[in-house]
Amino acid sequence: MRVLGVDPGLTRCGVGVVEGVAGRPLTMLGVGVVRTPADADLGRRLVAVEEGIERWLDEHRPEYVAVERVFSQHNVRTVMGTAQASAVAILCASRRGLPVALHTPSEVKAAVTGSGRADKAQVGAMVTRLLRLAAPPKPADAADALALAICHIWRAPAQNRLQQAAALHARSVPPVREVPKGRPA
Amino acid sequence: MRVLGVDPGLTRCGVGVVEGVAGRPLTMLGVGVVRTPADADLGRRLVAVEEGIERWLDEHRPEYVAVERVFSQHNVRTVMGTAQASAVAILCASRRGLPVALHTPSEVKAAVTGSGRADKAQVGAMVTRLLRLAAPPKPADAADALALAICHIWRAPAQNRLQQAAALHARSVPPVREVPKGRPA
Repeated sequence: MRVLGVDPGLTRCGVGVVEGVAGRPLTMLGVGVVRTPADADLGRRLVAVEEGIERWLDEHRPEYVAVERVFSQHNVRTVMGTAQASAVAILCASRRGLPVALHTPSEVKAAVTGSGRADKAQVGAMVTRLLRLAAPPKPADAADALALAICHIWRAPAQNRLQQAAALHARSVPPVREVPKGRPA
Repeated sequence: MRVLGVDPGLTRCGVGVVEGVAGRPLTMLGVGVVRTPADADLGRRLVAVEEGIERWLDEHRPEYVAVERVFSQHNVRTVMGTAQASAVAILCASRRGLPVALHTPSEVKAAVTGSGRADKAQVGAMVTRLLRLAAPPKPADAADALALAICHIWRAPAQNRLQQAAALHARSVPPVREVPKGRPA
């Protein structure tokens, strides 16, 4: 399977493409960063992120896209930009009918280093080793995007089994609509 | 000037088009809600928001788009969806080269009711009166979208003067790049 990992951000959006299957050596097909100028207005920055992601999808034709799940525990300003950049990446993939998976930072760290609390250097070191690179990819956002893609390849078999089970279950019993709590967005 | 107001949301995205200039009676050209199913995956919902906004832009050809500025003081889950829906609306407008303005909820309330802490009913009542409608637009998201458009029409002259002043200033002195604090998104 070929996976595009996206570490979303407005200033630097990390992107990395990894091919392989769980239990076999993985291959890096590309890594980079989509940058947008911090002094441009939000609309132009989102258009630039869209153009960048589209180029990566066109060039590498991934079958899956893995995007970091955004939480708002951090700096509010930063989180809004990250949420908006992630929306653009998810939109680009979904428009093409590509399945999009969201993984939390700790899922990604745990997948590649064995610890959900690993630091950037540890993640970079493991990405370098797993993809047999000469040096850790720079900046950290690029390494994180590769880690997301690796995490997705390794977690995918379990996730796919869950999805298949859910689909089978949905066919055998009438669907139960979840009642959202509070006012929906 | 013709303005599309967007009250962003994943479940209900309010949209309203108002034409007019400050100091003259305003005209409503359209109002509605772009809805996406709460049980669909995030990617499909963002694609549905994009399709909905594109239809409104195609049909009404606004010259400006006014979007509610999202803060994260509320429910974290809700805010993420709102930020992502707003990113799609801003992206759609910017792709067409339309200027996008962000107004805070209290700016909008203050513009149409005179108080930044007005409730939904008050905003609905003033929108009804200002646009000479037979009844308040339902749901509240639709009324809020019209209020955003009205706010933009009334604030635009001042904002445009500020932008012109900033542009003049930028031509007369060398630009100073802001140094972002902490790790940028």
